[in-house]
Amino acid sequence: MATDVSIDRELEQFYKELEQHDLQPLWTQAKDLMSKHPKPDAVPWLWRWETLRRLAARGGELVGIERGGERRVLSLSNPGLHGKPYATPTLWGAVQYLNAHETAPAHRHTAAAIRFVLEGDGVWTTVNGDACDMHPGDLVLTPAWTWHDHCNDGDKTMIWFDGLDLPLVNALDAIFYENYPDLNQRVQGEHNRSARNFGGPGLLPAGERPAEPFSPLWVYRWEDSDRALAALLRERGGPMVSIEFVDPTRGVSALPTFDCQLHRIAAGGRTKPVRRTGSAILVVYRGHGSSVLNGQRFDWSQGDMIVVPSWTAVEHQAAEETDIFAVSDTPMLRALHLFREETLDAAQNVTSTFEPR
Amino acid sequence: MATDVSIDRELEQFYKELEQHDLQPLWTQAKDLMSKHPKPDAVPWLWRWETLRRLAARGGELVGIERGGERRVLSLSNPGLHGKPYATPTLWGAVQYLNAHETAPAHRHTAAAIRFVLEGDGVWTTVNGDACDMHPGDLVLTPAWTWHDHCNDGDKTMIWFDGLDLPLVNALDAIFYENYPDLNQRVQGEHNRSARNFGGPGLLPAGERPAEPFSPLWVYRWEDSDRALAALLRERGGPMVSIEFVDPTRGVSALPTFDCQLHRIAAGGRTKPVRRTGSAILVVYRGHGSSVLNGQRFDWSQGDMIVVPSWTAVEHQAAEETDIFAVSDTPMLRALHLFREETLDAAQNVTSTFEPR
Amino acid sequence: MATDVSIDRELEQFYKELEQHDLQPLWTQAKDLMSKHPKPDAVPWLWRWETLRRLAARGGELVGIERGGERRVLSLSNPGLHGKPYATPTLWGAVQYLNAHETAPAHRHTAAAIRFVLEGDGVWTTVNGDACDMHPGDLVLTPAWTWHDHCNDGDKTMIWFDGLDLPLVNALDAIFYENYPDLNQRVQGEHNRSARNFGGPGLLPAGERPAEPFSPLWVYRWEDSDRALAALLRERGGPMVSIEFVDPTRGVSALPTFDCQLHRIAAGGRTKPVRRTGSAILVVYRGHGSSVLNGQRFDWSQGDMIVVPSWTAVEHQAAEETDIFAVSDTPMLRALHLFREETLDAAQNVTSTFEPR
Amino acid sequence: MATDVSIDRELEQFYKELEQHDLQPLWTQAKDLMSKHPKPDAVPWLWRWETLRRLAARGGELVGIERGGERRVLSLSNPGLHGKPYATPTLWGAVQYLNAHETAPAHRHTAAAIRFVLEGDGVWTTVNGDACDMHPGDLVLTPAWTWHDHCNDGDKTMIWFDGLDLPLVNALDAIFYENYPDLNQRVQGEHNRSARNFGGPGLLPAGERPAEPFSPLWVYRWEDSDRALAALLRERGGPMVSIEFVDPTRGVSALPTFDCQLHRIAAGGRTKPVRRTGSAILVVYRGHGSSVLNGQRFDWSQGDMIVVPSWTAVEHQAAEETDIFAVSDTPMLRALHLFREETLDAAQNVTSTFEPR
Repeated sequence: MATDVSIDRELEQFYKELEQHDLQPLWTQAKDLMSKHPKPDAVPWLWRWETLRRLAARGGELVGIERGGERRVLSLSNPGLHGKPYATPTLWGAVQYLNAHETAPAHRHTAAAIRFVLEGDGVWTTVNGDACDMHPGDLVLTPAWTWHDHCNDGDKTMIWFDGLDLPLVNALDAIFYENYPDLNQRVQGEHNRSARNFGGPGLLPAGERPAEPFSPLWVYRWEDSDRALAALLRERGGPMVSIEFVDPTRGVSALPTFDCQLHRIAAGGRTKPVRRTGSAILVVYRGHGSSVLNGQRFDWSQGDMIVVPSWTAVEHQAAEETDIFAVSDTPMLRALHLFREETLDAAQNVTSTFEPR
Repeated sequence: MATDVSIDRELEQFYKELEQHDLQPLWTQAKDLMSKHPKPDAVPWLWRWETLRRLAARGGELVGIERGGERRVLSLSNPGLHGKPYATPTLWGAVQYLNAHETAPAHRHTAAAIRFVLEGDGVWTTVNGDACDMHPGDLVLTPAWTWHDHCNDGDKTMIWFDGLDLPLVNALDAIFYENYPDLNQRVQGEHNRSARNFGGPGLLPAGERPAEPFSPLWVYRWEDSDRALAALLRERGGPMVSIEFVDPTRGVSALPTFDCQLHRIAAGGRTKPVRRTGSAILVVYRGHGSSVLNGQRFDWSQGDMIVVPSWTAVEHQAAEETDIFAVSDTPMLRALHLFREETLDAAQNVTSTFEPR
Repeated sequence: MATDVSIDRELEQFYKELEQHDLQPLWTQAKDLMSKHPKPDAVPWLWRWETLRRLAARGGELVGIERGGERRVLSLSNPGLHGKPYATPTLWGAVQYLNAHETAPAHRHTAAAIRFVLEGDGVWTTVNGDACDMHPGDLVLTPAWTWHDHCNDGDKTMIWFDGLDLPLVNALDAIFYENYPDLNQRVQGEHNRSARNFGGPGLLPAGERPAEPFSPLWVYRWEDSDRALAALLRERGGPMVSIEFVDPTRGVSALPTFDCQLHRIAAGGRTKPVRRTGSAILVVYRGHGSSVLNGQRFDWSQGDMIVVPSWTAVEHQAAEETDIFAVSDTPMLRALHLFREETLDAAQNVTSTFEPR
Repeated sequence: MATDVSIDRELEQFYKELEQHDLQPLWTQAKDLMSKHPKPDAVPWLWRWETLRRLAARGGELVGIERGGERRVLSLSNPGLHGKPYATPTLWGAVQYLNAHETAPAHRHTAAAIRFVLEGDGVWTTVNGDACDMHPGDLVLTPAWTWHDHCNDGDKTMIWFDGLDLPLVNALDAIFYENYPDLNQRVQGEHNRSARNFGGPGLLPAGERPAEPFSPLWVYRWEDSDRALAALLRERGGPMVSIEFVDPTRGVSALPTFDCQLHRIAAGGRTKPVRRTGSAILVVYRGHGSSVLNGQRFDWSQGDMIVVPSWTAVEHQAAEETDIFAVSDTPMLRALHLFREETLDAAQNVTSTFEPR
């Protein structure tokens, strides 16, 4: 072999030639490509309800809803994600704002969506012809490729949380989008048909199973969620109990790519730190307290939204009884057999406190 | 070859020798062993509620419930089944009768059972420690190998329909039975825990899925069934709508070997004749009318029980709005890929009328 | 209450009335209906190859094969099963005999069948148009509702073991039978198509999965079985290794209702006693030795057939390296969640020796 | 409302404020985020074998293999993917080069990998202790989180194609990586244990099913693939037949995130254009011809590698009988229910020809 200098020169020449031919050496970047554990670009972050609400309302004054713009939506843009309008690499989180007597036009897309109502009343979302009424704390699904539009028939504005798998679907180059022929769908029959047909406890219309890979139940009522959480907490005690929203015909998460849960934390309850592959968005529905994410403390109260990147240790402490709505991409990671979960024994050291902008 | 006579003699000798060696020729019995379609020994049959109720009450006077006898149960004994206490080759149907302040001792068995309440109140069935309250129209499960006892804490007698897969489990030589160490189980916590935990519409405790192959929901309320049937009938119209009782964690029949359904037939409604492999027991919960089974007419009213053998054409006609509870072995036949179903176009010719004994 | 005598009289009268109304009391027969563990009617039994072979050949002289008789088959008739031509309550076992240049007509039935070749060559079974060549040690499937006929194109007689789920299918009243329009099917293309298409190791035609619930591979060669058994025995040591014949598109037993396995027992090897729910038929393909079934000793050599009823403890001892082909209803019991298995620690006491008739 | 100018100023101010608070409006970018069909960044591309081989060999002269660099691998870097070393957003494609008597150190990662041998002999890959011998045309799996190292025991260099789901696993923030305690694993027992145990046609060791979600068969031989392709082509005719490499215990793709197939195109055969969600990498193993991808013509011959981005119409034409090895992320898209496929009726218009660099 030649001297080091000549080798360096040869290597330099070699690397140049690789680049010219659209090739890259693994050995110079192996450690970055295959790290010992996930090192997400996304960062833990929190958005204040006060800000979200104020800016959404400002949007309500300044921006209309028509075909093309389609929706008055402010998306959580994770500062680690290079300017993308995404909360995490797989999940979209946003607030959507609908003025009284406004209607958002009908369309469909292969990205799946959920709506969790934060404020207002008198709105319904029509899903494939079935009008699903929306009240605070209700969850409404608009699964992949279902026609959907939102109609505010009342005198109040409504604001809800939007969760979608859009970043994932785009990362996989699998998005399709289509406008409904008319501006809105015609509602078929009485409202809330999916709830009447598929919302019985342990009851299903005989022999009917959806061909599509998502829940045929499209609306879940806050009263039911509240009752289930109360019963669980009474029976098991704290610090936290959780329910998940499922497809009643399969018993799995209502959508195949991400799940929806509600956590109730007892007043004063403190959870053990847990980390998981995959990311989540938390929406504080009721209560106040704080969470520690990888050693950073996030104080939160009602309406705040928090992003948890992959493999980030999370623990919660509730100052009063608290309900947190959460979406996460766990079902997707499980389907691909890439899910890992770890409970840490000791509480994390808090090394900093998050200051929301 | 020799003459026919000598061949006959040789054959006779051959058949004798086969018998001596515990062998049998197929060719002499092929047509009976493999018929063109099922030819069940079980016959279509009907038991009058008046008789069932009267004899059950008589049993209540004459017979106690103690360890050994275990239950005050009168089983439907299909006249075609050679004296066996079975409604069909796979299904057990019976009335069970519990006097006020009586308790039936705790045991478990690999045969799975359901209880559909016909009359009375104030009883609960304890299933693996969870007390499930029983009211008319409620369905209570005691799945395979769960501990169960029945306790009448009230002042009324109760009578319910028992459905089991006992004939199947015995035909497969798979029965196991065990007495509980004490006469009764101790009830753990508040009654109806399974309903609180697994009875939410589209809601499940997060991450909890039963290891056992049956529903963790053990009681289904009449109010919910009634509401679901009413909604279906309103929406779809008659002649008949049906719900099935499912395992909410899987969306399949609550028990793996047989299913439970409720049919609501509109007043005046008449169903098309259908025949299926596998057998069923029907219990008229409300209403009156008639059914035609393989050309024979069965008139029925509230409380009557009817057996439908395999591959028997069945059609119903309701004189008033009618609810029929049904158990059938369809899930078992589906699991073994032996299920067939056929809807006949024209109504059957009625060639006789069943006269109950 | 009255005196004992009057009660007895009343009870007698009560039981009589129950009988008149086709009802039976549970309490008088509860222990028999629900025993602590399975108590099969079927008994452990053994048929000598010498007898089977001789009588099958005698059948070959005396009895033809034509439409109606269909097959020259001698079925194992378990002495415990009340004269039925069944080896166990769920399994049919038999020897089938085909003279040189004979053909058994084409038909189909919902009972599934397997053929394990014991002697001869030059035969093929045509399954839905695909001719599957048969050599000693080969396994050929004729799954439920597939057309099949057997053609002996050679100069030798052939004898094989037939295994069917016919007793099960009949117990469930689910038999359908149909003759093929012609006496025989026309063979389509080259023989052994299923083996070429679905017999590659870990290879499948892209995207092709059978709609039917059984293996699309219909013939398994002795050479492959022998090689797999030899490799397993070399690697793991004795006393016994086992392979199962699977549906290569699902990795489950080739047929949904019963499975086929080959056991190789090392010379001198002795297995631990095991008992399982469900029954099995064993066919000694090679070797000699003995088995103990519930304390009774059965000596066997090549070609002998042994029936193992449900929950019967079985242990084997091989005098020389031995191959045993076995069918069992385990997949059916698993599908219904009624399978149990128990390995006993100590060898059984031999209390008697079976004397074949 | 105010004048347009003042609205513009208010909107500008509004958008600024959104940005300050890490929020983004959907309505300004809805069309880009939700396009009518996938618009991948990745571009169709081709790498010449001549270049790949030459540069890989040059790497063999200049670069060693040691802990840290780990592998002598040149990755296909799609020009559309912003400088990343990825062939597509989900798939890694590369050539790996091993000099005679070289060994690549043992490690494991949650990214799954396959190796398809292009040239050389005398190498084995040890997977969890099992040495899998590698010959041209063989496929070797190193599934997620299995220990693996490569050992060249012979006198020839070996070059193979590496396919991984690394871009996907990184996009999902789910990578874990670990070095084996020693430089290499100790080989346990005879080579190719997985093939002996799980490579029988329709045969499996009884009762053994992997807990892990991937194939327990880790090596697939060219002879078997070749035979299967020849049989399919003979039976079905052209223009193309395909086999897939499956997990023999489940009948699904050998790895859960991407699949491996071999296509054989008859001499002169021309396939219809097809487009699918998800991406693929094609490796020409034998033959020459051309493909049209979205109207651009790619001429190829032995060893060339071609990338097919999502929703790109692809058709092939073979000048002589051709074998193409392919990896694609179809199983992942199917698991998430995002798979779509469309066959176009007419051949595409060729509007340009690809010039490889």
